[in-house]
Amino acid sequence: MNKSKLEKIIIGIDPGTNLMGYGVLKVTGNKAEMMAMGVIELKKYASHYLRLGKIFERVTGLIDEYLPDEMAIEAPFFGKNVQSMLKLGRAQGVAITAAIMRDIPITEYEPRKIKMAITGNGAAAKEQVAGMLQRMLKIPKEDMDVQMDATDALGAAYCHFIQMGKPETEHKFSSWKDFVNKNSDKIHK
Amino acid sequence: MNKSKLEKIIIGIDPGTNLMGYGVLKVTGNKAEMMAMGVIELKKYASHYLRLGKIFERVTGLIDEYLPDEMAIEAPFFGKNVQSMLKLGRAQGVAITAAIMRDIPITEYEPRKIKMAITGNGAAAKEQVAGMLQRMLKIPKEDMDVQMDATDALGAAYCHFIQMGKPETEHKFSSWKDFVNKNSDKIHK
Repeated sequence: MNKSKLEKIIIGIDPGTNLMGYGVLKVTGNKAEMMAMGVIELKKYASHYLRLGKIFERVTGLIDEYLPDEMAIEAPFFGKNVQSMLKLGRAQGVAITAAIMRDIPITEYEPRKIKMAITGNGAAAKEQVAGMLQRMLKIPKEDMDVQMDATDALGAAYCHFIQMGKPETEHKFSSWKDFVNKNSDKIHK
Repeated sequence: MNKSKLEKIIIGIDPGTNLMGYGVLKVTGNKAEMMAMGVIELKKYASHYLRLGKIFERVTGLIDEYLPDEMAIEAPFFGKNVQSMLKLGRAQGVAITAAIMRDIPITEYEPRKIKMAITGNGAAAKEQVAGMLQRMLKIPKEDMDVQMDATDALGAAYCHFIQMGKPETEHKFSSWKDFVNKNSDKIHK
C-alpha cells in the first residue's frame, strides 16, 4: 500500500465560550475533502460552567462520530486582556482534554499562521479565508452558509493538512508564492 | 432530621499545570473535618497536553473516591501575563469540567478571599493559612507535611464551608473580628 494514499481524518476546532467552531477534513494522499463543518452554540447555556461541560460533551461527540486521527486547534497566544485569555484558556483546555481522553494528537496554530497558510496573508479577513477554503476544497456554495467560527475551524484543519505534507525542513515558507512553488500538488486549481 | 446536621463533602482544588493541590472536607452541621489533602504531580509529564489529560483523570478519580457534594476552586482572576493566564485557564477549565461531568456545583474563590476568610488578612502568607487550617481543623502535625498547593486547596474548601454557613445577607464581612463575632460557632478554639 502506498502510504501517502492512506486516509486520514483531521478535525479542526476554533474554541470559544460563546461559539465553538469545528470542521472535519478527510485527507487521502495529498487530496483533502470537507466532511463536516459547523458551530456549537454555547450562548444558550447561562452558566459558564455548563458551557464548559457542553464543550466537553460535544467535542467528544464529534470525535466519536468522525473518528479523527488528529486535531488542529486555532489558538491565539495573545488576547485583549488576562480575563479574556483565562476564559479562552478554559475553553481550549476542555476541547484539548476531550481529544487527549481519546488519544488524539493535537497541534495548535495561531490564527495568523492559519491565514498565512491558506491565503498567503497572515492578516487576511475571515471572509478571504472562507473563500479560499471554498475554492480549494470545492465546497458547494450553499454549504458555505455557516458562521465564520466554522470556516475558521476548517481553516485550522486545512492548515494542519498543509503542514503534515511538508518535510520538517520546509515547515516555514516566506510567502504564498514560495509556498505554492513548494507545494503545487496541494493547490486545488 | 435536622437539616443543618446533614453531612456534606467539599472538595477544594488549587489548579496548576505543574502541581494541582486538593483538599477534602467533611462537614457535619457546623463542624468541618479534613478527609484528605495532597498534590497531583504533573511536572513528570513532559507534554502540556498529557498534563491536561492527567488533571481530568485524577480530579475525576478524586470525585469518584470522595463523592463530594460541592467543589471550591482557588481561582486567581489576575496573573502576571496573558500567557500564564491562558495556561492557568486550561488547567482550571479541565478541573471544572471534571466536576461538571459529575454534576457537582462549583464555586470559585480568589486567593485573597480565601486568605481573608481563614486568617482575617487577605495578604496572609501561605504558611499562615496552613497554620490556621491546622488549628481550626485539628490536623495532626505529621499530616501537615504537604506542599503548600495542598493546604491552599484545603483552604478553598474551608472558605467555601464558611461561606455556605452564612446567610446570604452576611456574605461579606469587614474584618476577622467582625467575622468571628458573626460566626463564633465556626471557630474551633
